[in-house]
Amino acid sequence: MAEGEARPNKKVVLRNYVDGFLKENDMEVVTDTVRLQVPHESTAVIVKNLYLSCDPYMRVRMSRHDQSIEFPGFVLGSVMTGYGVAKVVVSGHKDFKVGDLVLGITGWEEYSLITDPNSLIKINHPELPLSYYTGILGMPGMTAYIGFYEICAPKQGEFVFVSAASGAVGQLVGQFAKLAGCYVVGSAGSDEKVTLLKEKFGFEDAFNYKKERDLNAALKRCFPEGIDIYFENVGGAMLDAVLLNMRNCGRIAACGMVSQYNLEKPEGVHNLINIVSKRVRMEGFVVLDHFSKYRKFEEMVVQHLKSGKITYVEDIAEGLESAPTALVGLFKGKNVGKQLVVIARE
Amino acid sequence: MAEGEARPNKKVVLRNYVDGFLKENDMEVVTDTVRLQVPHESTAVIVKNLYLSCDPYMRVRMSRHDQSIEFPGFVLGSVMTGYGVAKVVVSGHKDFKVGDLVLGITGWEEYSLITDPNSLIKINHPELPLSYYTGILGMPGMTAYIGFYEICAPKQGEFVFVSAASGAVGQLVGQFAKLAGCYVVGSAGSDEKVTLLKEKFGFEDAFNYKKERDLNAALKRCFPEGIDIYFENVGGAMLDAVLLNMRNCGRIAACGMVSQYNLEKPEGVHNLINIVSKRVRMEGFVVLDHFSKYRKFEEMVVQHLKSGKITYVEDIAEGLESAPTALVGLFKGKNVGKQLVVIARE
Repeated sequence: MAEGEARPNKKVVLRNYVDGFLKENDMEVVTDTVRLQVPHESTAVIVKNLYLSCDPYMRVRMSRHDQSIEFPGFVLGSVMTGYGVAKVVVSGHKDFKVGDLVLGITGWEEYSLITDPNSLIKINHPELPLSYYTGILGMPGMTAYIGFYEICAPKQGEFVFVSAASGAVGQLVGQFAKLAGCYVVGSAGSDEKVTLLKEKFGFEDAFNYKKERDLNAALKRCFPEGIDIYFENVGGAMLDAVLLNMRNCGRIAACGMVSQYNLEKPEGVHNLINIVSKRVRMEGFVVLDHFSKYRKFEEMVVQHLKSGKITYVEDIAEGLESAPTALVGLFKGKNVGKQLVVIARE
Repeated sequence: MAEGEARPNKKVVLRNYVDGFLKENDMEVVTDTVRLQVPHESTAVIVKNLYLSCDPYMRVRMSRHDQSIEFPGFVLGSVMTGYGVAKVVVSGHKDFKVGDLVLGITGWEEYSLITDPNSLIKINHPELPLSYYTGILGMPGMTAYIGFYEICAPKQGEFVFVSAASGAVGQLVGQFAKLAGCYVVGSAGSDEKVTLLKEKFGFEDAFNYKKERDLNAALKRCFPEGIDIYFENVGGAMLDAVLLNMRNCGRIAACGMVSQYNLEKPEGVHNLINIVSKRVRMEGFVVLDHFSKYRKFEEMVVQHLKSGKITYVEDIAEGLESAPTALVGLFKGKNVGKQLVVIARE
């Protein structure tokens, strides 16, 4: 392609702020034009987007917000943004050259202008599937790494519970827990996912939370001695049941609460007194704060992937047009493994 | 008194397990007999109880429990126990002699047999009012010390909020926060207590939560920049409002949730997602785990008391017969300052 050339640019925009459960027609796929040129003397780059990551936190950005929050809201009628894998096609920045493969916040569109390329991370291992950099080698992987190793501070032999365990973050937390010599149980929303947890990811046990009438009883069955570490992805009723089953000095890494994002009023959590009596530390974290550790994380996970000690399952939607459906499916639990969208493979 | 002598021994016993709000007639004052003698070759001691501490956690011990909890339940018809200040009157233990003043878990009665005197702490500063050892120099003081300095890890200039702020723990947390160079605001349940917080304990601001229609608005008024540290004594609706006002990387020391102890089902807390987005650490602690630091704490507080840098308010009920009323009053917020009962002054 020629620099300066004008091209059609398909993109996903937010049509309206979302109340309650996300629907496909809250988003719209439109086409406008992009000129493959960066402003004069700018250090921006233009990237061709290859793989887009569908992540639960994006739902939070789709609500109308009356105050600044950690994740700024999307702008109505504008392109949605999120983590993706992309290739540099025009560069005004000395550290990036055409053809470089990068990971970072980009647009849900074919081509994006990145005004601050310093936010991008270069992909060091293109010999692995590039899509992995939306998940196990991207933000969700970093989330599992920071949340498990830094927030949970695991010790060998401890009892670990992971909710949303077959998702992008959960499947890696479970495998990190195995590597750390822990006993790990996961919950997921279908029997297929439960099988995946036990047979593919090596969880000692797993259960389908939709089939359990009493989450407290399910946890007591899986953890007769209680839970040392809970990697919290869902919130609400599951958190309430977990609180009843924490052991003394347990840790809860609060990574997200996906069961709550589509509710107008979050569910009440009633059992917080157990935080006092069991001396529990519940700690929230935002992975953005920790990207200085990215290379250390990347090398560790690449090594385990190559030696077969860690495995990974992804659910790939084809084409930008499928992106709204893929994102909605995340909240219905339709995806099996990490949900992502492929726009182009190179 | 002569060793071996039999004496009448007035005591407070639990009449029935408590459901819902504690009432005076859930307890009963009865009299039996004590023989001032320890078993042959035993290392027990007999103490004369002087001051008894009324503490919110005691309510938890009055419910019927279907499983072991941190605080074992009281036994129906048996004497209630709690922290107190006492004098050794008979000793079978080489480290304790008759006349020693001690602090520790004792009975709500005139004389108690302490089978494991190693659980007792000798009082090093009898030149201060002995009653202080039920509060500012006792378990509540240690709770403030551990919770504030170790769990909250305060930094100069941070914004600190304390609920139940005029109580035994809260008044000391507020004064520790001032010593640490923090900005401190407290909530309490009467205008009299609010005045006390501002005029006696040096809180920058305080509010009567019973007069606030909207706790979130009250906190926004007192903390336009948000809260770095919350010393949690009450739980429920106050915690929910605090979560909306936490700053990034805030800490919540979960010390107790007194507003919840008399409810059959605890209130729901809806705003936990802020733990994630604000990277909040909420950590429970039980002061029992930390008594190895007692002497360090005691010397620090004694020095501040003697130099006038810390002050202290207590609410003293006279006589063992008044103990049930004093304990019930704690949950109605009747006490102004640390609630205790004096059985005998020496």
